[in-house]
Amino acid sequence: MHAPWPDTRLLHLLGIALPILQAPMAGAGLSALAAAVAKAGGLGALPCAMLTPEAAAAEIRLFRAQAAQPLNLNFFCHPPPAVDAAHDAQWRQLLRPYYEALGLDPETALPAAARKPFDAAMCALVEAERPAVVSFHFGLPAPALLERVKATGAKVLSSATTVREAVWLEARGCDAIIAQGVEAGGHRGMFLSDDISTQLGTMALVPQIVDAVQVPVIAAGGIGDARGIAAAFALGAAGVQLGTVYLLSPEATISPVHRAALQHLGDDDTALTRLFSGRPARGIVNRLMRDLGPMNPAAPAFPLAGAALAPLRAQTEPSGISDFMPLWAGQARRYAQALPAAVLTQRLAEETLQRLRR
Amino acid sequence: MHAPWPDTRLLHLLGIALPILQAPMAGAGLSALAAAVAKAGGLGALPCAMLTPEAAAAEIRLFRAQAAQPLNLNFFCHPPPAVDAAHDAQWRQLLRPYYEALGLDPETALPAAARKPFDAAMCALVEAERPAVVSFHFGLPAPALLERVKATGAKVLSSATTVREAVWLEARGCDAIIAQGVEAGGHRGMFLSDDISTQLGTMALVPQIVDAVQVPVIAAGGIGDARGIAAAFALGAAGVQLGTVYLLSPEATISPVHRAALQHLGDDDTALTRLFSGRPARGIVNRLMRDLGPMNPAAPAFPLAGAALAPLRAQTEPSGISDFMPLWAGQARRYAQALPAAVLTQRLAEETLQRLRR
Repeated sequence: MHAPWPDTRLLHLLGIALPILQAPMAGAGLSALAAAVAKAGGLGALPCAMLTPEAAAAEIRLFRAQAAQPLNLNFFCHPPPAVDAAHDAQWRQLLRPYYEALGLDPETALPAAARKPFDAAMCALVEAERPAVVSFHFGLPAPALLERVKATGAKVLSSATTVREAVWLEARGCDAIIAQGVEAGGHRGMFLSDDISTQLGTMALVPQIVDAVQVPVIAAGGIGDARGIAAAFALGAAGVQLGTVYLLSPEATISPVHRAALQHLGDDDTALTRLFSGRPARGIVNRLMRDLGPMNPAAPAFPLAGAALAPLRAQTEPSGISDFMPLWAGQARRYAQALPAAVLTQRLAEETLQRLRR
Repeated sequence: MHAPWPDTRLLHLLGIALPILQAPMAGAGLSALAAAVAKAGGLGALPCAMLTPEAAAAEIRLFRAQAAQPLNLNFFCHPPPAVDAAHDAQWRQLLRPYYEALGLDPETALPAAARKPFDAAMCALVEAERPAVVSFHFGLPAPALLERVKATGAKVLSSATTVREAVWLEARGCDAIIAQGVEAGGHRGMFLSDDISTQLGTMALVPQIVDAVQVPVIAAGGIGDARGIAAAFALGAAGVQLGTVYLLSPEATISPVHRAALQHLGDDDTALTRLFSGRPARGIVNRLMRDLGPMNPAAPAFPLAGAALAPLRAQTEPSGISDFMPLWAGQARRYAQALPAAVLTQRLAEETLQRLRR
């Protein structure tokens, strides 16, 4: 059953039928998306960074009610930022004209940051639920927590954006490494550098990581269809991770405004921005990014930047205005398809196998 | 003879045996590099942007004394910049501390800009020499000049960094389009936008351009070995253009300092910079890029920025110091090989065919 794929290491390692991993996308998909991909044979992922342990447990139950396949629980593992009142004040000052134009109180109390790092409570959840796969973004958690995760038998994945990050992850026990090229939508997994000017495209990154590590490498970033999947195998990857391509599926949980923005078929209209969270992430260029510059240093450290935008977003998004919200998308967003995620997964696999057989 | 390649359109169009184009690299290679690649079956290219018509004619003669194969003459076609004395003064002011530290007169007269756009004199050269291929960077020349080039029977190529640029080039008669991903070394061919934040990686760019135009597409950027060439075909390209991989060949004319910098096997140590010319180009990060920021707007418009750096470079490069010179290189620079360019070209072709046969 695994024979037609040019590389079957991931299939055996992760217990999946197709070398297609659904990218965990916090805010864009939950158990329905993960279960659809899993039932089609790919690896479904549940992004937990914006969930409480209770909510994550509920989503795991929903997944398991639909699918018997392996599940990938995904966590952020950023160091909690130091609170910097002066920086926060500067950011609120920069946003003040938008508050005033919308008739909002610039001094209103703000919500807590929505994105939380992996901690003891989430580790306990992993120990209780025993997912087949646990993946991290922004490096790895502290050694004691990582050891507990590995003791459950879970296979551990994380993202590398450079050779140095890939070697670092392999040395700490990652079972496979996601090579995340700069084309990818959403947050860059970068953790040994914060300089986006030297980040690599998928075409250049994948072979260099393949040559530097022993574990299987999963290509991510800019892969939109069977051509991209076949290209990833040609580069030496053992599989792919796809995110943006699923954003128009009915199982995606993005808002109508985000969905509408994805209908316009652009290629050069996404950029890396730190405005919405404090860390660079790729999304469709919108008014805030144009006004302030996408990498404006005034935005507070991850994940604090988003809090001061929440009132602006709450006031505008219901009216169909995307000015103050992230519109995460990768550079191959043209290939997102409004198909059920299971159909899309199977179609991508079939079309890739047809190409590889030629 | 063409049968083994998955796409033979370029071979027929350009009259070459291998779908490998040597990237024209102004300052990094002349007739010796072009002839070596041509004799191996690829398309050799002569970069003319930094040559006088007389010097270009001499190089064409040298090429033709060695190779009977087609030749690609490459030209820049940027609009000549308006002189902006205030901007120039600001740039010289910014560089003043370096002049003083090196004991140079900050008011010294500067050389003329080294890079010139395609003009009537170069067009007359094309008409006299009738190269098989003429390629442009930064768009296309004025319609009257382009018409004269096409009337010679030359096939015309140019680079696109977005779908919009590709469609623009096809509409104006390009016979094939180079899809230049952001991984590529040297100058970005971008001409309908100057915003590097939205430039695409090769993995995302190639399929989108393939889907948007009818003419053959040549993939460029981040391709370092047979894996990358095979991946380019998987993405729908009809061939590849390779530059960085040739920089360590004996035929490359880069200086010992540049060659030495390429010996250190980095992956995430190149960035786009406008400091050395005024337009974004990828090179290894060096002191000037670190000190001023690689995209500092104080550098004058292309191609004027380089003039004020010339005295600094002349004072330091002979001592092995690379602080004030461009170290052009792409993101797959690890795969540059110190092999004769003909051997390298044939080896890349053979290894690619082996992969494609699997």
